Amino acid sequence: MAHLLSTSCPLNISSSPKNGPNSLKQSLASLPTSLTLRTSFEPFRSLSIHRKNPQRLFSVCATTLQQAETKTGSGSDQSSGEQSRPTRVMVIGGDGYCGWATSLHLSNKNYEVAIVDNLVRRHFDDQLGLDSLTPIASIHDRIRRWRSLTEKDINLYIGDVCDFEFLSEAFTSFKPDAVVHFGEQRSAPYSMIDRSRAVYTQQNNVLGTLNVLFAIKEYGEDCHLVKLGTMGEYGTPNIDIEEGYITITHNGRTDTLPYPKQASSFYHLSKVHDSNNIAFTCKAWGIRATDLNQGVVYGVRTDETAMHEELYNRFDYDGIFGTALNRFCVQAAVGHPLTVYGKGGQTRGYLDIRDTVQCVELAIANPAKRGEFRVFNQFTEQFSVNQLASLVTKAGEKLGIEVQTTSVPNPRVEAEEHYYNAKHTKLIELGLQPHLLSDSLLDSLLNVAVQFKDRVDIKQIMPSVSWRKIGAKPKTVSA
Amino acid sequence: MAHLLSTSCPLNISSSPKNGPNSLKQSLASLPTSLTLRTSFEPFRSLSIHRKNPQRLFSVCATTLQQAETKTGSGSDQSSGEQSRPTRVMVIGGDGYCGWATSLHLSNKNYEVAIVDNLVRRHFDDQLGLDSLTPIASIHDRIRRWRSLTEKDINLYIGDVCDFEFLSEAFTSFKPDAVVHFGEQRSAPYSMIDRSRAVYTQQNNVLGTLNVLFAIKEYGEDCHLVKLGTMGEYGTPNIDIEEGYITITHNGRTDTLPYPKQASSFYHLSKVHDSNNIAFTCKAWGIRATDLNQGVVYGVRTDETAMHEELYNRFDYDGIFGTALNRFCVQAAVGHPLTVYGKGGQTRGYLDIRDTVQCVELAIANPAKRGEFRVFNQFTEQFSVNQLASLVTKAGEKLGIEVQTTSVPNPRVEAEEHYYNAKHTKLIELGLQPHLLSDSLLDSLLNVAVQFKDRVDIKQIMPSVSWRKIGAKPKTVSA
Repeated sequence: MAHLLSTSCPLNISSSPKNGPNSLKQSLASLPTSLTLRTSFEPFRSLSIHRKNPQRLFSVCATTLQQAETKTGSGSDQSSGEQSRPTRVMVIGGDGYCGWATSLHLSNKNYEVAIVDNLVRRHFDDQLGLDSLTPIASIHDRIRRWRSLTEKDINLYIGDVCDFEFLSEAFTSFKPDAVVHFGEQRSAPYSMIDRSRAVYTQQNNVLGTLNVLFAIKEYGEDCHLVKLGTMGEYGTPNIDIEEGYITITHNGRTDTLPYPKQASSFYHLSKVHDSNNIAFTCKAWGIRATDLNQGVVYGVRTDETAMHEELYNRFDYDGIFGTALNRFCVQAAVGHPLTVYGKGGQTRGYLDIRDTVQCVELAIANPAKRGEFRVFNQFTEQFSVNQLASLVTKAGEKLGIEVQTTSVPNPRVEAEEHYYNAKHTKLIELGLQPHLLSDSLLDSLLNVAVQFKDRVDIKQIMPSVSWRKIGAKPKTVSA
Repeated sequence: MAHLLSTSCPLNISSSPKNGPNSLKQSLASLPTSLTLRTSFEPFRSLSIHRKNPQRLFSVCATTLQQAETKTGSGSDQSSGEQSRPTRVMVIGGDGYCGWATSLHLSNKNYEVAIVDNLVRRHFDDQLGLDSLTPIASIHDRIRRWRSLTEKDINLYIGDVCDFEFLSEAFTSFKPDAVVHFGEQRSAPYSMIDRSRAVYTQQNNVLGTLNVLFAIKEYGEDCHLVKLGTMGEYGTPNIDIEEGYITITHNGRTDTLPYPKQASSFYHLSKVHDSNNIAFTCKAWGIRATDLNQGVVYGVRTDETAMHEELYNRFDYDGIFGTALNRFCVQAAVGHPLTVYGKGGQTRGYLDIRDTVQCVELAIANPAKRGEFRVFNQFTEQFSVNQLASLVTKAGEKLGIEVQTTSVPNPRVEAEEHYYNAKHTKLIELGLQPHLLSDSLLDSLLNVAVQFKDRVDIKQIMPSVSWRKIGAKPKTVSA
């Protein structure tokens, strides 16, 4: 254990050539199930390493025994809108699909990065019998590999932002200039499985974000919150969707108000609740925040994740976590008809994951002012589901794959034909250079799907969650 | 104990002349700390009576061991908008200020009433060192007294709607036609005390309401949800406030959308979250719901609570639970200057508690259609804080009380001078006959305050919670 605890807290996992990728796991496997060691750092604290379940990966939690009285950050008395160039970025949910790609991108751009994650996304897969199409390494192996390739460290805090004691320790020890918050249950179907998952989704997302807001207020009021929202917060109104706000003239008077929200799952609703909570704290406490209302993300490779197979990003194609375009590519690769839900006229904003990481970096590099609740619509193009199916069909032809499309009963409650015109100019104004959906990207996505087609579990492809049939009783997935 | 358990479950507290008001409490005091007795009812269930803390009042929880498979209510296949005349009303939070007055009013109007309450409002008083101006009887004594006066039973379920097992039992055994949901933490200052109270408020309110929605879907889809919202959800926009929705024409297109919300405390935000969640379930599941965006309630007496001192309603005048007009009357009665926060131009909608009970009854008697999310603004008049202070000053003069007014620093973050014009016609259209704020009502309120002025604790009057200074650390109240 000495080589572990001799590193500074948080845990910087050292990668020495003599250790194989599993050596850390092996050395931890010989640990007792709970071990607490005090370090001599200020503030006085403990580093607890405990293995709740010997069958599962270990977890490392940093906890505070006594909170430091002094506040970090510039405090509330600094009311100027300016922030010195941010260099330290905490990525909450940094082990997930968008979070991992973002963490590597920021680290590559020489930001000092800390990943905060409770790894529950991997746990969902275990519980639901799902798996990423691409094999993904453990977060520890990922970070070690990144270090060995680039000599850049990524700090790691394993724990739950709903646990404020843990979050406080992460904040006070890492002292972030910006927090990127991906750390939420992010699947609409997951939130519609049963009552307990609906409640979990709102509890985890809303209360976790409240804790992040309190941590910023308490430990670093100048810290910039970059929060992942979703375009799904807006629903499909019959008027143009603006970026966060709309100017309304009514009975001869005019005001600019939050854009009305019409979310259509307990997940999407949790993001609406977050947006409302964050907007209030910007006004009441002077928090600086950017809400990134992201569209549907597709793609798997970024410059960084492509560097080594241990850096591969996850790729979800199942009916719960898989997003439309990624799922279609897998269906095409294995000869399964593309499953269009209902009429297929559902139109949404989409973006390449390479643009996700670019947008987040742009938001961090150009922080919101103190007290500003800034909203960006983060997508690059609009497509209907039918348009996506058609694009994948054409890409398949080029690769000699015959692609069928089938309409399945829509498990969701949503308009299947509707007006949709959403603005997305603010990130472009900050310098976003979009990777538009191209033939070559579709080819490459299809090729990834073909490469890993032996890992595809056909049972996962069909929608398994109904918006209307959700019940109060716990649902489990049979083997 | 026999006389207790021989009544049907839920607990109908019997009031026999030979028992004094404390006899039930005394007989329970001799119980072991936990006792579970099975009854022979279908569905098979247990009635657990346990005393967690012998120093505190006992609690009675009905729990289900095995859930009935059959659903009650008309089920989702009945899609017609019509509902037979509702007769069975569950009042969640029926021991609170509005809930108690409503429960008695509905019982008096021959509805079959069940109160569901975890009594946490009384617990808040214990923890914060607060107390109602009026002495209030225990919920058990209240219900016994009501029965002895009117021969009407009120069913009682003591438990927490955040506990879905408890809520399921209450639903399946009582089978409500309508649920009135007052059961939320209802104080903005309480939600701004510290992080844990902020988190508690959103957790309790949002997740409790989710559970109520799931209970309706699972056990009685035809049941009408009458949910207490707040006018505070709208904030103070610079345009007229409509009832729930606004028609917007934008870039040449028109849609009717949810009215934009700008809540200004974690409490008010919790109600916004509720409204959004309920609207979704109306659309996705066909829930019938009425959201009553209530203004600030004043007054203490209703026809029913005035019948006996054991039926008295609570009257809060403290800086945390006390509302503006009630607090001003107490301040006038004890010679304390009326505490106007800031400039006093804050304008809100107000209503008499006799109109609260009338509005709720109107909503129940005229249910929303299946799938309808109906929003009523529930208030009768608008006043600024300065106008209220002036009215109380004049009323004091008539009673020979000299009333001073003082401006104290505003603990809240809110506009102190603003446009305010909120619509409130829908309840009038249903037949509401308002009790407008009159000299005689103010006289009677002042007289109540004078009657109980010996019970006033001056320390409770001043604002003690700051919107800006709220911190992450737990706050306790010193003795």
